[in-house]
Parts: sequence; C-alpha cells; structure tokens
Amino acid sequence: MHIDSPARAFASDNNSGICPEALAALLDANRGHVVGYGDDPWTEAATARIRSEFGRPDAAVFFVLNGTGANVFGLGLAAGPGKSVLCGHGAHIEEDETGAAEAVLGCKVRPLSGRGGKIDPEALEAALGILGDVHAAQPSCVSVTQPTERGELYSVEEIRTLSEIAHRAGLVVHMDGARIANAVVALGLPFPAFTCDAGVDILSFGGMKDGLAFGEAVVVFDAGLARGAAFLRKARLQLNSKMRFVSAQYLAWLESGAWKRNAENANAMAARLASGLRGISGIEVVNEVRANMIFVRMPGDLAARLHETAFFYDMEPGLSRFVTSFDTEKADVDAFLERIRA
Amino acid sequence: MHIDSPARAFASDNNSGICPEALAALLDANRGHVVGYGDDPWTEAATARIRSEFGRPDAAVFFVLNGTGANVFGLGLAAGPGKSVLCGHGAHIEEDETGAAEAVLGCKVRPLSGRGGKIDPEALEAALGILGDVHAAQPSCVSVTQPTERGELYSVEEIRTLSEIAHRAGLVVHMDGARIANAVVALGLPFPAFTCDAGVDILSFGGMKDGLAFGEAVVVFDAGLARGAAFLRKARLQLNSKMRFVSAQYLAWLESGAWKRNAENANAMAARLASGLRGISGIEVVNEVRANMIFVRMPGDLAARLHETAFFYDMEPGLSRFVTSFDTEKADVDAFLERIRA
Amino acid sequence: MHIDSPARAFASDNNSGICPEALAALLDANRGHVVGYGDDPWTEAATARIRSEFGRPDAAVFFVLNGTGANVFGLGLAAGPGKSVLCGHGAHIEEDETGAAEAVLGCKVRPLSGRGGKIDPEALEAALGILGDVHAAQPSCVSVTQPTERGELYSVEEIRTLSEIAHRAGLVVHMDGARIANAVVALGLPFPAFTCDAGVDILSFGGMKDGLAFGEAVVVFDAGLARGAAFLRKARLQLNSKMRFVSAQYLAWLESGAWKRNAENANAMAARLASGLRGISGIEVVNEVRANMIFVRMPGDLAARLHETAFFYDMEPGLSRFVTSFDTEKADVDAFLERIRA
Amino acid sequence: MHIDSPARAFASDNNSGICPEALAALLDANRGHVVGYGDDPWTEAATARIRSEFGRPDAAVFFVLNGTGANVFGLGLAAGPGKSVLCGHGAHIEEDETGAAEAVLGCKVRPLSGRGGKIDPEALEAALGILGDVHAAQPSCVSVTQPTERGELYSVEEIRTLSEIAHRAGLVVHMDGARIANAVVALGLPFPAFTCDAGVDILSFGGMKDGLAFGEAVVVFDAGLARGAAFLRKARLQLNSKMRFVSAQYLAWLESGAWKRNAENANAMAARLASGLRGISGIEVVNEVRANMIFVRMPGDLAARLHETAFFYDMEPGLSRFVTSFDTEKADVDAFLERIRA
Repeated sequence: MHIDSPARAFASDNNSGICPEALAALLDANRGHVVGYGDDPWTEAATARIRSEFGRPDAAVFFVLNGTGANVFGLGLAAGPGKSVLCGHGAHIEEDETGAAEAVLGCKVRPLSGRGGKIDPEALEAALGILGDVHAAQPSCVSVTQPTERGELYSVEEIRTLSEIAHRAGLVVHMDGARIANAVVALGLPFPAFTCDAGVDILSFGGMKDGLAFGEAVVVFDAGLARGAAFLRKARLQLNSKMRFVSAQYLAWLESGAWKRNAENANAMAARLASGLRGISGIEVVNEVRANMIFVRMPGDLAARLHETAFFYDMEPGLSRFVTSFDTEKADVDAFLERIRA
Repeated sequence: MHIDSPARAFASDNNSGICPEALAALLDANRGHVVGYGDDPWTEAATARIRSEFGRPDAAVFFVLNGTGANVFGLGLAAGPGKSVLCGHGAHIEEDETGAAEAVLGCKVRPLSGRGGKIDPEALEAALGILGDVHAAQPSCVSVTQPTERGELYSVEEIRTLSEIAHRAGLVVHMDGARIANAVVALGLPFPAFTCDAGVDILSFGGMKDGLAFGEAVVVFDAGLARGAAFLRKARLQLNSKMRFVSAQYLAWLESGAWKRNAENANAMAARLASGLRGISGIEVVNEVRANMIFVRMPGDLAARLHETAFFYDMEPGLSRFVTSFDTEKADVDAFLERIRA
Repeated sequence: MHIDSPARAFASDNNSGICPEALAALLDANRGHVVGYGDDPWTEAATARIRSEFGRPDAAVFFVLNGTGANVFGLGLAAGPGKSVLCGHGAHIEEDETGAAEAVLGCKVRPLSGRGGKIDPEALEAALGILGDVHAAQPSCVSVTQPTERGELYSVEEIRTLSEIAHRAGLVVHMDGARIANAVVALGLPFPAFTCDAGVDILSFGGMKDGLAFGEAVVVFDAGLARGAAFLRKARLQLNSKMRFVSAQYLAWLESGAWKRNAENANAMAARLASGLRGISGIEVVNEVRANMIFVRMPGDLAARLHETAFFYDMEPGLSRFVTSFDTEKADVDAFLERIRA
Repeated sequence: MHIDSPARAFASDNNSGICPEALAALLDANRGHVVGYGDDPWTEAATARIRSEFGRPDAAVFFVLNGTGANVFGLGLAAGPGKSVLCGHGAHIEEDETGAAEAVLGCKVRPLSGRGGKIDPEALEAALGILGDVHAAQPSCVSVTQPTERGELYSVEEIRTLSEIAHRAGLVVHMDGARIANAVVALGLPFPAFTCDAGVDILSFGGMKDGLAFGEAVVVFDAGLARGAAFLRKARLQLNSKMRFVSAQYLAWLESGAWKRNAENANAMAARLASGLRGISGIEVVNEVRANMIFVRMPGDLAARLHETAFFYDMEPGLSRFVTSFDTEKADVDAFLERIRA
C-alpha cells in the first residue's frame, strides 16, 4: 500500500521520525540471537554509556517502552498508595497521561503553583505541611519537568533548592526529562549538572522526542530506590523482550553525539521561529524560547485560519504551542512564517 | 563500540531479531511528520488490514507496546477488581508476567487444570460454580493461549466449546495469541477460524515472536468491550507516540505474507529438531510438535552439559524447552543436534 | 481498667459517642443468630426504610464500614482507572482520605474552584472540556459535599444545575452526605429534595456524625450503577459480617426520628456558638452557620492560648473550625465562650 | 418495627451476636467526647493490653474494621505489585474475600498444597524456587491460617518450620487469626507461643468470631514492617473515626477473660456436636475437631433434607460445615442432633 510522504510540521517533536544514527543502530543490532529482556551486549554497553554520561557508575538504568511508562515506572519507585507526588502546573504526569500514575501506582498527583510550569519553592514548603497528618496523602516525591511543559527551564540553582527542600523532608526527587537533550543544549551544561548533581534521584531520560524510534530510559541514581525495580518494570508492562532494539539506539545516540546535534537543531529552529513570530503584529510569544517549544497568543481568527492549514495544539483557548524537532529545516520555519503572514 | 554478531540459538523466538519485511517497513515509514498516537495513515491502513484478515470490519484494533501489555490491556476490558480471569495451567498471564494482571487490573488470575496447558471444559464448568457468591472473585473472562505455553494447539472445536460455556455464563473470551501465526500454520486454518469465528472476543494478536521489532496488537471483536478502551490504553502505559513504527510493521508483515512464511519456517524447523531429538536415546519429546515449541525430558547430566554450551530454559527440573524462530536455519538445527549427540 | 469520662468539646462531631436510640438498637438486635453479611431481617427492614425516606423503592442500599469507605465504594461505581472525579475545593475525598480514592479506585481526583467548598458551575463546564481527549483522565463523576467541608450548603437549585451539567455530559453525580441530617434540618427540606430529586445518583448517607456508633450507608438511585456493586463492596473491604448491628442502628435512627432531633440540636448549638463568637472582638465567623460547623478567624495568640485548653482543628494558619454534635449542650457552648472571652 | 428473635444455629460463628462483656464495654465507653481515629484512652489501654498479652512491648497494634480489612491491611505491609502471597489451600484470602488482596494490594495470591488447609513445607520450598526470576511475581509473604479454614490446627513446630523457611528467603510471615481464641484453647498455649514466638510477623488478631460486635485488630511484631502503616490503614478504608468503640471491646474482652471463656464454650460445643455426629450412621466427620469447626460428609438426601430446616454451608458437594459459637448451648447441639437423627 502506498502512503504519501507527509510534510514536516510544528505540532510536536514526537511527530517526527527516526534520526539516521538511531536507524543505523537498529540495522546494526539486527544480527543473530541474543537473550531477551536486557541480558544482551547492547543493553550492557548502553547502560555503561549512560552511567558514564552522568558520572555515576552505580546508577541503575532501566530501558522502558514509552514516556508515560518511564514516568510511571520511575515515580513508582518513590510513590504509591497513601502517598502523593508533587509536580508543577501543567506537568505531563498531571495533565497528559490520562491519570496513569493514579491508575497504575495508586498515588495522588498534586500540582503546585509556580511560573511557567515550574514549582515555586514556597509552594513546595507549604505542601509539605501535611507530612505526618494521617488523613492526608503523604508527599513522597517531587517531580520536576525540565524543560517544563510550558517551555521554561529550571536553573541548576532552582533544582538544587527544590531538591534540598524535598530531601530535608525525606522526599525523593524525580525529573521528567522527556526533552532533556533540549535542556542540555539550552543551558550549556552537561547532563549531570542539573540532574544527579543537583539532587535528582530518578530521571526519565527521554530519547524519543530527540530522534529515537521507540523506547525510553529511566536512570536511578540512588541504588536503594532501585531495589526490586526490575520486577516492577515487568509488572508495570515496561519490560521489552527484544530489548537490544531500544538500548542499541540509546548507545548510538549517545556515542555519535546525535543526541546533541538533534537538540541543537531543534532549539535553533525554535529560536528562528520565535524570532519570526515576534515580528508579526498581533502575535505574542509568551515564553522565553530557549529549548524547542514556543507558546504564542494570537487573535482567534488568525488561530482559526492557521488551524485550517497546519496541525498544532492549543493549550487553552488563545494559547497555541509550536514545537520544533531534530529534523526541522530552516525552509520549514520560513515557509510556516510565510503562511502565517499571509 | 563493536559488538560481535551473536549466534542463533533455541532459547526463545523473542531472542531473534527483525524480519526483512518489518525492517523495510520501518525504513519506509521514516518519512516526514505525522500526528502521534495513532492518527496517521500507516495506523489507519494497518487497522483496515487487520479487520480484513479477520473479516470483521467493525473490530477495534489497538496497537500496544509489548506482549504483557497486550494481555493486560486486553484482559482489562473484561476484568478488574472483584473479578477473576480463568486461564490454563502455565499460562503466560499466570506464570510469566510478574503478576501484571493483578498489579495493573486488580483482578484475580486463576489457573484451571487441563492437558498441555489447555483448559479442560469440565474444569471451566466447575470454576463457574462460584458465580453469584458474593465472597468469591467473579469469573468474568476465560483466557486461552493458542498455541499454549506447553506447545499444544486447541482445535477449533475445543475453542468453540470453551467459548460457549463462557458466553452462556456471561464471560468474555480472551486469546493470548503471542504465537498466533504459528498456530495458523500448524492448523492450516485462517486467522478467524479459531479466533473470532470460534467465539474469541478479545485477541492478543502477537507479532514480535514472528519477526517484528517491537509492538503488539490487540483486536477486540465486540465493539461494546472496546468502549473507553482508548483511554485505558494510555492510562495503562500502552500508547505509543510514534505509533506509525508499530503499525507500519504490522501492515507490511500482513501484506507481504511474511507473517506466514516466518511461521512456516519456525514450525518446519521445530519439526526437524523434534524429529532429530526423538532419534537420540534418553531424550523424550513430550509434546506433539506442531507449532514452534519443543518440550523434552532428558537425563540431568545431559541437560547440565548442554546448558554449558547453549542457552535455553528449563520449565521445571527435567523438562527443557526449545523454540525455533523465523530465522532458524536447517544448519542451526543440525548443528544443535550434533552438539547434543556429542 | 478505669477510664475517666472525657468532657464534650468542639473538635468534631465524630468525637461524640452513640445516641440513645442507636444504642438501644444495638441492644435489641443482639438476639439469637442471623445469617451474616446482610441477609438478615434488620438489614431488610433498614433497606426498606431508607428506600421509603427517599421515595425510591428501587434504590440499592449498601451498608458499609466507615465514611471513607462509603465515599470510595460509592465513587467506585462511577470512576476508575483513566477516569477522574471532580469535587469541590477542600472536599473530604481530596484532602482528608489519605488518597483513598486514588489508592483503591485508581482514578484521579480533581478539585474545582468555587466558594465555600462548593463547585462553581462554570468551573465544572470548563473541566469537561477535556472529555474525549485521550491524554486526559476522563471526568466520569461529580462529587458534591452537602454541607461542604467549609460548612456551606448547596441550594436545591445549585445541585440541580450541577447535576444537569454533569448528566448532559454523561457523568454521574455523587453526594458526600456525611452530615446530611444537618443539611436536611438547615434547609428545611426532606432527604430526596436535594439528593435524588435534584439529580444525585449515588449518596454517601452518613449516620456516624449524627449519633451512630459505627457503619455508614450508600444509596444508589440508579439501578444500573449498582450492578456488580455487591461484589465490589466485599472486594473493597466494606462488607460487614455482623451486618445487623449497622442496619439496626440505621433503622432505629430513622424510625425514631433521632436522626432529625440530633441534627436539630447540633445545628442549634452551632448557631448559639456562632452568635456568641460574633460578639467577641477580634473573632470573625467566616461562614454562614446553618449546619453544625463554624469557621472562624482569630488572632494567632488567641488561637494559641485556646489550643492549650481545648482540642480543635485549624484548617489553615489562622482559620479554626468548631463543630457541634448531637449531644452538645447549651452549658457546653456557654462555658466554651466563657473560656474564649477569658 | 418488630423483629422476631432468630434461633441459634450452626452456620457460622459470625452469625452470633455480641458477648455480654463486649456489650458492657460499648456502654461504658459511651461517655463524653474523645478525639477520633484512635487518639483516645480506650485505644491506648487496649493497645497496651494486646502488647502485654503477646509479651511484645514494641508491637504495633492497628484496630481495623472487619476481617477482610484486617487481612488485606496486614498483607499490604508485606506484599504489593510484582509480589505474591503464598497461602494454604482454601485460605480465606484466596477463596472468601472476593479477590480483595488482588484488588486493593495488586499482589498475586497463590495457594499451596497441604493437608487440611495447612501449607506443606515442601510446597513452600518449591514455591520459592522462582525467587529472583524477573518474570515471576516474587513471593514476599507466607500467610498461615490458624485454625485453618478446614478446622485444622498447626502445631507450634509446624509454624516454626514454615517461618524459618520463609525468613531464610526474606519473606514475611502473616497469620490469619480470625479464630485465634479457638486455637489458643485447642492448643492449650498462650497467644505468643504459636504467633510471634513461632516466627509470625503480622497477625490478624480476630475478635468478631469470638463475641465482638465489630472491628478487628492487626498486630505487627516487627516495627520495621509497621512503618507508614498508619497512612495505609486510612488509605485502605480501615480507619475508624469512633475508634474507642472497637478498642474498648478488645480491652474488655481481654481483661475479663471473655475471649477465653467464649472460645472454650465454642470448642466444647463443637466437640459435643462432633461426638454426636460420629454416632449417626452415614455421617463422617472428616477433620479432627479441636477448635469450633466440624466438616462432615453425609449422603446427599440427608444433606438436602437438613438444608430445609437449618441454614449451613456446603464447602463443596457432599462436604458440609458446622460451626459453633460463644453462645451455643448444649440444648442447641442436642436439638440439632435430634433433628438430624429424625
């Protein structure tokens, strides 16, 4: 059956395909038989590579199946019945996972106020006031998203502050790093600087939005939290039988530097798009565009007309989101701007 | 990093890689941007193709992430808290999924007696005696595995008998078809003959063990059971963002006939291996080898020596399992037999 | 072992004991043997009586074990994985049940804005905007608390408005009526007027805060929602073996009119206390005291001194709650006011 | 409404009412206001008394709402998703709780073979063979029932043997002691001898079947297992607001010796009934009647006729159960025997 090549657009970075390096890894790993479920040389090498990227030889690495699976599996090492996960406003685990954390873990998810989807430290402190109250779900985990679902970035200092508050109260810190490569590029900092070195205990280490075909990884920096996790990965539907096809992609993505080039391109294209949008009267870019997401306010009739020719999401009435990808080209941006101007 | 090509073996069909047709589909689908989560032309075409294979234009098709995910998602349309799923002895959902059905669905899983992993109709009738007893988890689903985890096949008549008992009592019939292609070839019957046409309501329509890289499908023949399922797929961690890379594989696998050729090869190689094993004194092949699994009893010292040179699983002390795959070659079989004889 | 009689106070109506009519019922029901789990004449009679109070001969009545059990069991007939329950700010199910709904049902609980713990119809309409979005937990139930946890009362019209919005969108309406008797007295309306006749489908029909020793009831007005509920009551730990000792209390409480006299006294004592408090400078009564809860703002040093001599709860810094009970006496109120004035 | 006094029968010990000492305790505790949820003098005293009975001053005591709640709450301190609870054949948690452990905890429950509902140590050893297998729910708890649901008693030695096997493998030992008082009397041993001193870590310390009106207790001998349990009690619907009415009963039941007198009577009446039944031709008493349950095989027509005049349960076709209670009188037994003989 013939299917036409669909055009590139700005709806989401998960609308893109597979980057060349990941595809090559799939082809290369397709040799012979290996034991399933992760006991294979690609998974061993990818695990070592991830530990090395983070400078944590003792970190536990779990390849899982998708982004929601990564978050739920990761949070499940720190939360469950009678517990709550505290997250930022608009967090993926709160708004975009169909209540998966509640459904699979039985914990409560509680969004805290803050700017641009970040958690305000004072809101966190206040939320911890119920610790010890037997009638309240007990906060056991703080989940930060980097960059946030509203395209903002936590500074290292901000993450450290939240981690310190959390750790002092006995909570675990999780980071949803579905777009972590974009954060690395935007911040100009290596992976560990704003993750494990800033107090993050459990990381959803996303690859799909940055060019991988399928599969995500979870990195657990605290060995104690990883105890029993291998069993939970299976019980929570996240254990891949042909694991090498996930891990080989991660290995190639990291070894080749594709992870960084992909994010650099996406961020640069977002900057180009934001710059163009700012020059169009009636359109307001509401976030500081440092990663690959752009949030704009535009007149209703303009949005309506644009929706007729392009697929993209409105976060709420009047607030539209554009996302660039590893394969976005300058011509794509310029043509899109042209269409808006028209 | 260089990784040596690992040899083919007989531990499991999930130790194999990707068949050429599925790989070509991955490459072909890697074009442009499409909306994520299944709203893409490959998923639309694959869904239509599956409906057509089963002759059920109204069937609901859900691509999911792995085999355990397929079973749990499927069973979850028919079972939950206060309910039980009745399955055969040694069923994957009972013994090989780390309690995922209990963990994610909250239902009870109860194995029934029968030969070779099949459910004995009398055992099913007896198990239904507790319907209406408020203190007993209520059977709401019968799950048959075709072929069973012990390598046996249900006849159409046997499935029909179980389905009739189940339906008469208001239960839903699920089939774990992780190796359904092997069953089709072994029975010489088309897909629908022993699934929907024999009373199966929900099918785990497995592709990975027959050559796909990742992803599985669930087919729901009764539209009523599929109500709300799209939300549960996401909440239960089974919704892939880059869905086209699963559905494109299914589409190619079905259109090209690879599904059948792969299974034909696996079954033929299993027959060859069984035949050779039967000729070795001290080894007893315990199942009727029609699909791609062989169960043998062999002396402890032989098993021990064989384990030193080959990776395979013992189901229980003294009972070993060999599985052939889409890519098993005659030379692999003959060399393995040689090694055993030595 | 001798235990001194503890004094009556204003911390909560569940700090009180058993009203005489309920106690007499316990004594009276303590005769001979009856079949357990509800198949007894007291439960039959109490069920009939409750149906009659609501004018709904087809209502399903389930006696359960405590208030959280009543809410979770009731909500569980309308919500589960992938679903959300929409409730008012500060609702018991959101703030005072240790995440039980999430833990036992796997649903999300989402508080909506509104005044005094009531749900604002516009907030409800807005929250329904995500219906059909596969990435969002789907609202399946609206839960109103009457009176609210902030001591306010919904009018019949307000409940009807919320019910109509909910029903139009296919949602079920649950009412947490832990203090429903106080609402009846405050509103001067019979039970059905603001429950089933105003669109409520499932009611937590509370008795313990109005004088019963233990046990609560759930009334399901829509028979379809009650299907399978008997099994869920057991699976969710809410089926009492010696059921007659719960149902006999409900029967006596309703037949004797104790339910109403108890609430009349509690409400009247709350009015007396509120009136006294309003006369003390520096104390602000923040809610309209029509039922039996009083919320006050008072200077921090006054609150601190008062906490030294009386046990009561602060909802948040600066906001204290006083609750009257079926057995509160005028002298209790006057002495408490005296202590505050001192 | 007038309800006739129902006669005493032999269907179950939970068909009986409240023993005088427990009733007196209810009346006595009905004084004044106390803080809810267990922070009251009766609960403090009852907790101390239970610790003293077991000689374990550090034991954690949790009053809960019913027997299924006790078992599920207790098991939940040792089991959850990805884990399994190993129990004896016919255990209450496996057959009589509507899948509550699976529904609320998400664990698997796996019955092991053995005689009379007891766990065979060899079966336990064999079941532990899957420890470490990532595809198998990991046994984390052994649950023994004393006396078993088939009326048999474990000796101290038998419990110690199972506990040692369990502990050596890192499992926790739970005892379902719904009829523990009957076991104490039958064995002539104090509570701790066959519980904590024999290796039991978590005990469902039943009172309702021995004369209490409502409420059960769970005793956790290992403080580590009790960490966080107070929150789980609430989240799992087992926290009573008017706790004193449960704990006061336990206190009186233990202080007065009623617990023992009640069990002595029940056991003696069972012995009397068993002795009489053994003298009736055609009836076979199949268990050694040391506690208060009698299992008999009798001809189908006799059973059918008896069912017409008496309410009792058949465990399976041809196997009937009779249970005596704290209030069973000699005349009840003799009249019942007379009826059977007739």
